[in-house]
Amino acid sequence: MPITANNPHIKSWLDVPADSDFPIQNIPFGVFLTKENVVTVGTRIGDYAIDLGALQQLNYFEGIELTDDMFMQDTLNDFISDGKKTWRLVRNRISDIFNETNPKLKDNTKHREVVVFKISEVEMQLPVLIGDYTDFYSSKEHATNVGKMFRDPENALLPNWLHIPVGYHGRSSTIIPSGIPVHRPMGQTLPNGETTPVFGPSRLVDFELETAFITTDVNIMGENTPIYEAEDYIFGMVLLNDWSARDIQKWEYVPLGPFLAKNFASSISPWIVTLDALEPFRTKGPKQNPAPLPYLQLKGKHAFDINLEVAITPKNGVPNVVSQTNFKYMYWSMSQQLAHHTSNGCRVNSGDMMGSGTISGPTPDSFGSMLELTWGGKNPIQMNDGSERKFINDYDTVTIKGYSKNNEVRIGFGEVSSQLLPPFVRQ
Amino acid sequence: MPITANNPHIKSWLDVPADSDFPIQNIPFGVFLTKENVVTVGTRIGDYAIDLGALQQLNYFEGIELTDDMFMQDTLNDFISDGKKTWRLVRNRISDIFNETNPKLKDNTKHREVVVFKISEVEMQLPVLIGDYTDFYSSKEHATNVGKMFRDPENALLPNWLHIPVGYHGRSSTIIPSGIPVHRPMGQTLPNGETTPVFGPSRLVDFELETAFITTDVNIMGENTPIYEAEDYIFGMVLLNDWSARDIQKWEYVPLGPFLAKNFASSISPWIVTLDALEPFRTKGPKQNPAPLPYLQLKGKHAFDINLEVAITPKNGVPNVVSQTNFKYMYWSMSQQLAHHTSNGCRVNSGDMMGSGTISGPTPDSFGSMLELTWGGKNPIQMNDGSERKFINDYDTVTIKGYSKNNEVRIGFGEVSSQLLPPFVRQ
Repeated sequence: MPITANNPHIKSWLDVPADSDFPIQNIPFGVFLTKENVVTVGTRIGDYAIDLGALQQLNYFEGIELTDDMFMQDTLNDFISDGKKTWRLVRNRISDIFNETNPKLKDNTKHREVVVFKISEVEMQLPVLIGDYTDFYSSKEHATNVGKMFRDPENALLPNWLHIPVGYHGRSSTIIPSGIPVHRPMGQTLPNGETTPVFGPSRLVDFELETAFITTDVNIMGENTPIYEAEDYIFGMVLLNDWSARDIQKWEYVPLGPFLAKNFASSISPWIVTLDALEPFRTKGPKQNPAPLPYLQLKGKHAFDINLEVAITPKNGVPNVVSQTNFKYMYWSMSQQLAHHTSNGCRVNSGDMMGSGTISGPTPDSFGSMLELTWGGKNPIQMNDGSERKFINDYDTVTIKGYSKNNEVRIGFGEVSSQLLPPFVRQ
Repeated sequence: MPITANNPHIKSWLDVPADSDFPIQNIPFGVFLTKENVVTVGTRIGDYAIDLGALQQLNYFEGIELTDDMFMQDTLNDFISDGKKTWRLVRNRISDIFNETNPKLKDNTKHREVVVFKISEVEMQLPVLIGDYTDFYSSKEHATNVGKMFRDPENALLPNWLHIPVGYHGRSSTIIPSGIPVHRPMGQTLPNGETTPVFGPSRLVDFELETAFITTDVNIMGENTPIYEAEDYIFGMVLLNDWSARDIQKWEYVPLGPFLAKNFASSISPWIVTLDALEPFRTKGPKQNPAPLPYLQLKGKHAFDINLEVAITPKNGVPNVVSQTNFKYMYWSMSQQLAHHTSNGCRVNSGDMMGSGTISGPTPDSFGSMLELTWGGKNPIQMNDGSERKFINDYDTVTIKGYSKNNEVRIGFGEVSSQLLPPFVRQ
């Protein structure tokens, strides 16, 4: 089925600012709360939020097989469960409804009043009920940087890294949408040169610049998904700031991996940009040498060209861009991650989320964490206001933005932005 | 509020076999499918499954504030959310309804017909929708055994182990109830002496003898739960076989911990035994030296005396008990695990599950995994049928049982039992 919604020549009757992340070619999916306190599934064009629940009630999806309350829900899980064909039909239909050549909704003031809201009037929610959250570790540059700092500069990559898209399980309960502040975590750390740990506020709170993909129901338990099918099960992508406490991490992570250093918060951008919308930005990933094992081999373009940047905004200050990189640098593709994840029969459900791991590019200004940007705090970053940052300070806001762009169209993610607050402790 | 249901002198008008795990003093909670294909919340007395949804509809819970469909659900999450006071009121009421001195239900044949089923007529389901699953690593003997085998026999325990109840995130999507078979996982392993991995069936599939506890809503995000409150948020416990593939684990687990080696299956016993029912079996845990940090300190009895055993049953064979141990040997208590888990503000919700980690006792016949029992395969275990086991063979059934017992009462968990099947691969 053609993705007619991707036609770069379509214009919407809704105003779309130049360089908007959300032209009519994007049509991402999210969940929002209206002024009337109604939760609904929606999409976004320009600076307008569109109530898909209302559109469905008004019969604009006639002819597409949908359950009656598909969009009158507080998560996208059911819609995502319906699979790729439905996603494509719905996106194509939305494109048609908002095409400047289509007067049906455009000229119906009553309908427009209950369907189209200013984006500033709605409150974005977590778009999916995330059952399981897996975080990968798929940037060679990031893994190498961390290996150099914490292990052996000469053998920075561990022996398994070039063979396995290394990943681990994260915590679903603390995944939050953009805009919700995060408390600096308390935790156990081992002061330098000491042998006894202390308990107190983490001193080394960091961001991790990541993307994540959201899956539909992939498999039944015990069954693998071959790599050539994997992309069919990826609904779309979001930006992810996987907050990390480096001092807690260093003390706790052996031998079972990061735990409290990571699970205090993971912030995501609220609009899921579909893999269909990103189709024009497919590109080849880095050459893999040694060749991966057959179950991880896939010819063709399975990386995506997505520009990413991180800014730190001090309290009452202005944004300081501290990193600019691109998703296309990732060594392991999403297809490889998903094929690996199910290779042992692990069940993956609708609404599960898989993080890329920190995305670091090849140059020092493209690293995806303060740990790498300041090289463990050795090279502080200067802010516009004259202050310095080794890690994130209380009341700093960390903002990740991302977009794909070619000569014809720009498909963006908006942002994930959240402020770090001081710790909160009950005695 | 007194736990009148724990009175050891109460007898039920339902027949309870001698040495049953489910006397009227137990009253565990589960979810089952009746012959009529109705899913309901239930409890068990002797060899009878009791439909709590039907009891509620027939007004037997009058006077207890419950939502109308509290027990007509396919999970216990809502009931667990209601908190300790409700759990206690309901358990006390069930005890009263089935007390031999109470004729109300006993003498009402019509009601009995829709409330009481033979246990063989119902099909047990997963009792909760598990949002997040955390697995701890809290047996000192287990951590020491693993450290001796894989790291340094002289410094078997890592430096953090005596200070932190070490834990990591597991996968919720593959937690299954007793009775469901498990496929031997495929995966990457590094053959001995090689530098290039291969992909194939795991050769070292193992059980892990564990218990797990199920929580109610513990905290809001960003807020910790002090250790003296932690037990109030524990609804109850189950037996857990945390299936593991040792060869996959060895190759994949550095530096982010076990992933595919563990997430192919975790089997649990279907009846959640409440912490209230286990109250008579409180005991002191091992002395902790060094003293834990203040946020992990708690006076009193916070371990539980629960006898545990594991049996392997070859295809068409008889059970071979391979390990007998006790939950009371655990170094870190459930209170400490939960206080640690929330110490950074990590949200814990109703229906979350936390595994103990492999429970190994002090003697070689009390170790909680084949890895330890056979010391990495060096000392195979003899089965009754003359065959040997280093790890688990295809078509073996692994069964974990557990119970607490004193002079007056026996409170048991039943069992978690599942068969290992050959791998399943789509090409």
